[in-house]
Amino acid sequence: MAINFPIKKKVEHKAANKANLGMELEDMINQSNEYYLVNNKAVIHKKPTPIQIVKVDYPNRNMAKIVEAYYKTPSTTDYNGIYKGKYIDFEAKENHNKTAFPLRNIHPHQIEHLRKIIEHGGIGFLIIAWNLYNEYYLVPMDIVFEYWDKAELDDGRKSIPYSVFKEKAHPIKVGYVPRLNYLSVVDEVYF
Amino acid sequence: MAINFPIKKKVEHKAANKANLGMELEDMINQSNEYYLVNNKAVIHKKPTPIQIVKVDYPNRNMAKIVEAYYKTPSTTDYNGIYKGKYIDFEAKENHNKTAFPLRNIHPHQIEHLRKIIEHGGIGFLIIAWNLYNEYYLVPMDIVFEYWDKAELDDGRKSIPYSVFKEKAHPIKVGYVPRLNYLSVVDEVYF
Repeated sequence: MAINFPIKKKVEHKAANKANLGMELEDMINQSNEYYLVNNKAVIHKKPTPIQIVKVDYPNRNMAKIVEAYYKTPSTTDYNGIYKGKYIDFEAKENHNKTAFPLRNIHPHQIEHLRKIIEHGGIGFLIIAWNLYNEYYLVPMDIVFEYWDKAELDDGRKSIPYSVFKEKAHPIKVGYVPRLNYLSVVDEVYF
Repeated sequence: MAINFPIKKKVEHKAANKANLGMELEDMINQSNEYYLVNNKAVIHKKPTPIQIVKVDYPNRNMAKIVEAYYKTPSTTDYNGIYKGKYIDFEAKENHNKTAFPLRNIHPHQIEHLRKIIEHGGIGFLIIAWNLYNEYYLVPMDIVFEYWDKAELDDGRKSIPYSVFKEKAHPIKVGYVPRLNYLSVVDEVYF
């Protein structure tokens, strides 16, 4: 399934996130994963963006040029890997709101995927950046499922309030290297 | 890094693999993974193909059309996931040769990735299809490392002979559903 692409998102965010020297959440996580990999702490990678390829040209014998393709809805999360022998899986999102994180930012497939990961004994969570506050949280899936399932039931408010982050989620410290030391929070929460 | 794309590969293979009703190894594994997922046996997915996007057009406000992109060298393997609480990671390749599997079919990054996975307590292997014989093997990484490291050392024959598959690798049965029941081999070898 092809999806709409949020054209303006990047521009808004670059402006809002000045305190992080314009570094996006994805870059922060990728840099941290690189640090974990090089230091032999964990092997966690971002999955490539799923693309539906429609047309490929061959300008010469050894070259393939994709000339028509579209973004697809991801069927899993963006990040997975292994840490201390455990399977680890998460999705990372930036939030530009003031008071709540809207759950429409997460695809239903991704929620179902994380549900299965936990059933099978893996570690699953969300990393949410609050861009206006420069705050980063690891959110265990039980909190997410609670709000997700409630929303499904009464078609009510599909979001997790900021107050819930403050009370129940786990803040992740921003540093230099690794930029976002989320594994130290994983240690506290899961080990 | 952009890579050359094997233009003719698909055509050759379709002809060689008639006994499997033309089903490619990737499709066989994807179908098996779908079976494992639906039956709650494991959560294993193929990663999307990594693409370097160069140019995107916006024919209208809500549509993004990629008009220039190239295939990239993968930095990890194609498949990973969780099975019986363990992290599992593998690469799958078809082999059209008669007497050996040429190791140039595997990228050095992928070998290094699998080395790290095993160091961190994960399960890593290759699935190799011998198209001429309609045989499928699970090859534990210690066998692959042996031939890979030897080849690196003396710049010699960078391949694993068919005889080694017969002696040391583990045949995977082809069935109807799941098409390629590789997890039953994982059970025997790793559990």
